[in-house]
Amino acid sequence: MLAEIITIGDEILIGQIVDTNSAFIAKELNKIGISVYQITSVQDEKTHILAALADAKLRVDIVLVTGGLGPTKDDITKHTFCEFFDDVLVENKSVLRHVELLFEKYISTPISDVNRKQALIPSKAEVLHNANGTAPGMWIHDEGTTFISMPGVPFEMKNIMTNEVLPKLIGFYERPHIIHKTIVTYGLGESAIAEKIETWEDALPSFIKLAYLPNLGRVRLRLTAKGTDRKILEDAIASESEKLQPLIGDIIFGAEDDESIEQAIAKLLTTKQMTLATAESFTGGILSSRITAIPGASAYFKGSVVSYATEIKETVLKVPAELIKAHSVVSEEVVKAMATGVQKLLKTDFAIATTGNAGPSKGDSNAAVGTVYIAVATPTGVFAEKFTMGNHRERVVQKSVNKAFELLQKEILKM
Amino acid sequence: MLAEIITIGDEILIGQIVDTNSAFIAKELNKIGISVYQITSVQDEKTHILAALADAKLRVDIVLVTGGLGPTKDDITKHTFCEFFDDVLVENKSVLRHVELLFEKYISTPISDVNRKQALIPSKAEVLHNANGTAPGMWIHDEGTTFISMPGVPFEMKNIMTNEVLPKLIGFYERPHIIHKTIVTYGLGESAIAEKIETWEDALPSFIKLAYLPNLGRVRLRLTAKGTDRKILEDAIASESEKLQPLIGDIIFGAEDDESIEQAIAKLLTTKQMTLATAESFTGGILSSRITAIPGASAYFKGSVVSYATEIKETVLKVPAELIKAHSVVSEEVVKAMATGVQKLLKTDFAIATTGNAGPSKGDSNAAVGTVYIAVATPTGVFAEKFTMGNHRERVVQKSVNKAFELLQKEILKM
Repeated sequence: MLAEIITIGDEILIGQIVDTNSAFIAKELNKIGISVYQITSVQDEKTHILAALADAKLRVDIVLVTGGLGPTKDDITKHTFCEFFDDVLVENKSVLRHVELLFEKYISTPISDVNRKQALIPSKAEVLHNANGTAPGMWIHDEGTTFISMPGVPFEMKNIMTNEVLPKLIGFYERPHIIHKTIVTYGLGESAIAEKIETWEDALPSFIKLAYLPNLGRVRLRLTAKGTDRKILEDAIASESEKLQPLIGDIIFGAEDDESIEQAIAKLLTTKQMTLATAESFTGGILSSRITAIPGASAYFKGSVVSYATEIKETVLKVPAELIKAHSVVSEEVVKAMATGVQKLLKTDFAIATTGNAGPSKGDSNAAVGTVYIAVATPTGVFAEKFTMGNHRERVVQKSVNKAFELLQKEILKM
Repeated sequence: MLAEIITIGDEILIGQIVDTNSAFIAKELNKIGISVYQITSVQDEKTHILAALADAKLRVDIVLVTGGLGPTKDDITKHTFCEFFDDVLVENKSVLRHVELLFEKYISTPISDVNRKQALIPSKAEVLHNANGTAPGMWIHDEGTTFISMPGVPFEMKNIMTNEVLPKLIGFYERPHIIHKTIVTYGLGESAIAEKIETWEDALPSFIKLAYLPNLGRVRLRLTAKGTDRKILEDAIASESEKLQPLIGDIIFGAEDDESIEQAIAKLLTTKQMTLATAESFTGGILSSRITAIPGASAYFKGSVVSYATEIKETVLKVPAELIKAHSVVSEEVVKAMATGVQKLLKTDFAIATTGNAGPSKGDSNAAVGTVYIAVATPTGVFAEKFTMGNHRERVVQKSVNKAFELLQKEILKM
């Protein structure tokens, strides 16, 4: 069972927006055993869309199209569908009523002819209800291939995908099972890992695929099994990952089942009923925002002091001025004082602090670009580690945030 | 001059990662007058890659491939290139020396056979130096089409793109000019705007295209002109946007030339030598992290207090407990006290504060999900506005952050 995603929109092809829709759709399809064979992004242009639809029809069983459904002139998916399926647009009463209701509820201006056009859909299409907008989704099954059209606005697409497309696909198709298991490693490059596990990798059964995914100082090893019997796949994945673990036991950071390290920390702190604060310098609030992105964070996260200016480390976090003078603001001593300072100020069990120089230029210290200190304060003490994170500003920050969470997780697990 | 981007990697097709490479490449190509006709993401699988290369060759002049260059077994781009171009792999001495140098400098383990394979490249390929990694980029010109291969790691790809690919393309091809102008509007939906500007839009010259890009409460109108004479294009874009402005003058938020509102604020504050602090509740550090993502933010940004727990609003920001009790934590009174509190604590000219309920459940107040208060404290006073931002957690946060920056920008412009 293969699918192709076609995203329509010049804004993607000129790089104005990153296409995040495809990853969402692919992930959801994967969960129900549908593999995405290809993702194709094309211009808002009829002949191009027609060619993409025709090509996709030859390759896959299910074609999911996003974009080109707005009411304005540059949005042409519906007309192109009519040409492709030799169909005409007809007014759909329930869609029209939905558009009218949305206007009554949220918009002061009366419904216009342009809005009314949202209710025109190809006669062969079934409507997929768009709870979050005026442009309906569409489902057309044609000569053995299913074509699905959704708006490009992520918020609208996600709702249609979750509430309309997935249930319909599950009812319509018998699907194989796809199981992934990802093991996260740190400290070794992908080629060094490949050598360590070569014999094991060569002996993998043909229905299991291995991928190496290096990123930000870690390499994730992803095992994928595909077949009709879920039990066989689960057993095979379990047995293979059991064989793998002793080969790289020293570098395994953990398994990853769609759970981020922030989520793992959230569970630990909630269970233990312990609290957390952060004191951030060059990470500028990213630690805090990643923590608060988890619903329910208020159960354990009290807050953060982003002490971007050196003086704030002194006035708010109560880091002694002499300490900064003696060791500079990027130092083990200062980061430890920041961690204990925020722990005391916000009255928490744990605290993480960061200080460093992410570049591009040197700040209030002489530390080389990429020099980073991370401290963790626990109920029983405080420690810090120094890291050298390279000279790419954004990567320095992201790697440091990951590292801070790793250090914290280890400490919580000891409690 | 048309290009196609082919991204190779199962991790994209299972939705494990979002393909950000394509947007970067497309944007850079666009700047030098090369249009991206299509973006295609395919599996790590030889026949599929071969088909994608052959198809792209029929469509475009330049094919840029990312991914599939790692040293491990799942990375097969080089072998596929050899098959596609009827070529063989040969060891490239300079690449081998580069790999050896990287290992000497950064990695303790000696270079292995797997690493040595990185120096094997198709004999017809020119090497594109990878300063940030071991896998070289490649350039093959074949029967009138240029094929470019780069690693999928964004950090490595960006460096090769900037320092190798773009200069080489500029030298190799004569290119047309492409000019964009984006006007940001707020307060009206895309269909309402379309009606207001219909006559103007219908009269646009054929070499100018208009696109509507709705997102997070704003609609961006993007004009794109393409042709051989840059002056003519610039004049036409200027004249058309001049005609457009009176039609929608009441809803124009500003022009956008790749400049974010944070960047605009950065320039304003730096020029005026004024300072900023933030006090964040449900935005959890995102305001602060967007500000500090701009290099040079330390010139005007002193820091942030993320007062996620209600008690922190009292103990750190000095919001009177009676005020919270009387009005609840999500209220105009409290957000104003947060703004003046952090302004005083961090001694800044301006401060922004947020409080609200982003959902999914109600917090320490009875405010409905989506209710948000944003305050701006200036050297002369403080004010707050209430907003209703819907019930989608992430969108509530993002829309509020944008709104907070808008309110702040207006105030700074008054000074």
